[in-house]
Amino acid sequence: MKTQSVSAQTPAAQRLDVEAQPIQVGLLGIGTVGSGTFKVLARNQQEIRRRAGRGIAITMVADLDTARAQALVDEAGIEGVQVVGDARAVIANPAIDIVIELIGGYGIARSLVMEAIAAGKHVVTANKALLAVHGSEIFAAANAKGVMVGFEAAVAGGIPIIKALREGLTANRIESIAGIINGTTNFILSEMRDKGLDFGVVLKQAQALGYAEADPTFDIEGVDAAHKVTIMSAIAFGTPVQFNRAYVEGITQLHGADIRYAEQLGYRIKLLGITKRRDDLGGIELRVHPTLVPAIRLIANVEGAMNAIMVHGDAVGTTLYYGKGAGAEPTASAVIADLVDITRLHTADPDHRVPHLAFQPGAQADTRILDIGEVVTSFYLRLQVADQTGVLSEITTILAEHDISIDAVLQRPGSADHAEGGKPTDLIIMTHDTVEGRMRQALARMQALPTVLAPIVNIRKEALN
Amino acid sequence: MKTQSVSAQTPAAQRLDVEAQPIQVGLLGIGTVGSGTFKVLARNQQEIRRRAGRGIAITMVADLDTARAQALVDEAGIEGVQVVGDARAVIANPAIDIVIELIGGYGIARSLVMEAIAAGKHVVTANKALLAVHGSEIFAAANAKGVMVGFEAAVAGGIPIIKALREGLTANRIESIAGIINGTTNFILSEMRDKGLDFGVVLKQAQALGYAEADPTFDIEGVDAAHKVTIMSAIAFGTPVQFNRAYVEGITQLHGADIRYAEQLGYRIKLLGITKRRDDLGGIELRVHPTLVPAIRLIANVEGAMNAIMVHGDAVGTTLYYGKGAGAEPTASAVIADLVDITRLHTADPDHRVPHLAFQPGAQADTRILDIGEVVTSFYLRLQVADQTGVLSEITTILAEHDISIDAVLQRPGSADHAEGGKPTDLIIMTHDTVEGRMRQALARMQALPTVLAPIVNIRKEALN
Repeated sequence: MKTQSVSAQTPAAQRLDVEAQPIQVGLLGIGTVGSGTFKVLARNQQEIRRRAGRGIAITMVADLDTARAQALVDEAGIEGVQVVGDARAVIANPAIDIVIELIGGYGIARSLVMEAIAAGKHVVTANKALLAVHGSEIFAAANAKGVMVGFEAAVAGGIPIIKALREGLTANRIESIAGIINGTTNFILSEMRDKGLDFGVVLKQAQALGYAEADPTFDIEGVDAAHKVTIMSAIAFGTPVQFNRAYVEGITQLHGADIRYAEQLGYRIKLLGITKRRDDLGGIELRVHPTLVPAIRLIANVEGAMNAIMVHGDAVGTTLYYGKGAGAEPTASAVIADLVDITRLHTADPDHRVPHLAFQPGAQADTRILDIGEVVTSFYLRLQVADQTGVLSEITTILAEHDISIDAVLQRPGSADHAEGGKPTDLIIMTHDTVEGRMRQALARMQALPTVLAPIVNIRKEALN
Repeated sequence: MKTQSVSAQTPAAQRLDVEAQPIQVGLLGIGTVGSGTFKVLARNQQEIRRRAGRGIAITMVADLDTARAQALVDEAGIEGVQVVGDARAVIANPAIDIVIELIGGYGIARSLVMEAIAAGKHVVTANKALLAVHGSEIFAAANAKGVMVGFEAAVAGGIPIIKALREGLTANRIESIAGIINGTTNFILSEMRDKGLDFGVVLKQAQALGYAEADPTFDIEGVDAAHKVTIMSAIAFGTPVQFNRAYVEGITQLHGADIRYAEQLGYRIKLLGITKRRDDLGGIELRVHPTLVPAIRLIANVEGAMNAIMVHGDAVGTTLYYGKGAGAEPTASAVIADLVDITRLHTADPDHRVPHLAFQPGAQADTRILDIGEVVTSFYLRLQVADQTGVLSEITTILAEHDISIDAVLQRPGSADHAEGGKPTDLIIMTHDTVEGRMRQALARMQALPTVLAPIVNIRKEALN
């Protein structure tokens, strides 16, 4: 470790020497993102070398389907790449400095990442599930071994949000993060609103268009978003990753009627990953659920498969980061940014590197993740009620008894997709902020009223100002 | 330079040793941003140390007005700070590792930055004017001396756009940047649109509210935005900073009528800093001017004094970064992010650092900045014409003869602020993309027509898709 004085004339020449030996990268799993990474590295190799000061070459690829892997490598037009069926052959290759893990899931991917670290390889991964669940173990192993684990691609694809949180906003006490961090569900919600279609119809369209997978469970149930917000929460607040403490609610129960009522009231419904500092309880909120957002907010106008993350810091105020959260080349953009960072720092003392979760390993806090019942938020409620006098009074009395104050009330003829005989009325109530546990109690009492004819719809609302 | 294996148990203890000796910073010029930096460093010192692994302390402040400087230091409640009248006393102090320059301008600030570099100090500056004009000289001196110059605060305040461009998007061939990078003019344009007021009225309000300075020339004439887009252009395209080649047009000539017509046509008018790669001419567009933007774009909905920058990369696609572009604490957020980066890397070999302008000093390109006449864009035109048959035919014939195709035409009764006798009509023409030089010729011919009664308003339009 030394401070070196470099003459203004020499750097270019110095770089040229280095350029002759690109850093060697091994790729585990060559699917969409893997072949995207290949293509972008090939297409922009000159530009990337001019920035990084050294070439970056994927020289070895491991995939169970070696024939398909070879075809993808050939398609990318890169020569001198060894294709193998056994990922451990990559990890065992002493010429490889960095291993990219694009297999996904908690199983074999976890073993391979741990083995790569143990072998002294730096790792780049897009595997949000793995990091949200086993991140603490992985980062501890990497710190012990003195290697880096890059994971910009794990959250919001090509948007450099990990770098923004970890470095760009490092002066700030982060107060909250709220993000559209799952493109599939944002596409579905956009289509439901634009075309007035129901969830099931749009999901099928999304699958046909490639915006949703054959098994879309992780996306539509909010699990993927929860993985991502769990990682961001740890970075923002200096806590370990704790996916098992996140509250997760997807969009499968959303009705078109509520999207339309929200619109009339000046709101859009978005699936948000939210994490907030709650000093009053010495805890952190960590949750994913459909959320009413004022239509005038920028984030309410993020449409289709795009992602956007709002970050509020005490010094900087509100910032927002927008871009493609998935796809071959946007994700490759993040993978390669990590490769460049590692290329730049792999021979440096670990003290010169940015800590994996932003805070120094010894300086993390064990702040509690709050139960959903402790969360403070406001609510949109839709009650299908009998059209008779006194109903509104019963409802508002229950809310008042639970200290929940009302912001607005609308009464509308029952929506078509719910009306069943009689003359039911849709009663829409917007509340002010309340502790969620209190709302749960009020909901149970309201639900028990004979004049309430169907399950009460309740959707959380965030002002995001 | 060594790769060190750190045990999982030891880092915290290692950091604690270091914490005893915070890195010492000297501040030149303690105005709004300087005292904001003081306050944020004091308020978040624990959090920043937990991230940086070492404390950061401003221990010396130089300001011509030492009494005011002392009062601001006292107000921030920090002890052990030496206040001096002579900036050179800070530069000469061997205990100071980093100098923050917040004086501004090209004069004394330039000398002091060069002297600080010569003295082996790292520099952090928010001075966009200095870097846009003298950046090449400053960065060359810093490279020669092996010191870093941080300037995140110079562009878009608290938004970490320099880091995003320089590191986050490093895999990409950047195609274009378009940004709202001056809060004063965006505030004025937002108010003109919202309240239907004229430029002069809103400017006075903005001055009263502190959104515009007593001498607002640099803001309203587009010079400040041009400084910032010049710096971003150099980083995006790997070229030297060349402010003198930028085309600069401010908002002082904008009429309320055109903001209203734009609105009717589905557009907002924003002052944008734009830079684009133009491979057909082997050049780069670099320009600041009022611009019609489709109202559905996120950037069109950036209101008030907020900033936002759209960056299009070949792999990542379109990304956008939004936040406060000015103010004490947002700018301090960026200054401190640079302090942390320097704290982390100041003892590292310069090869481990990110190059000042993203590309290695020896790997920059001397790509030509195009003349405004070579720029390709579409136009909004407003012609005040005599209400007689054949006028539209004359106009459209001239446009056709210059190969300019028309997207839409509107005719409206003359707007109140321009009508002068007779029965003039406002003729609004939206064109498709054209080379600007061709439009200049057509404009001259149209202006010469006796039926054209007033100077033709022409505003550039960008699709930004």
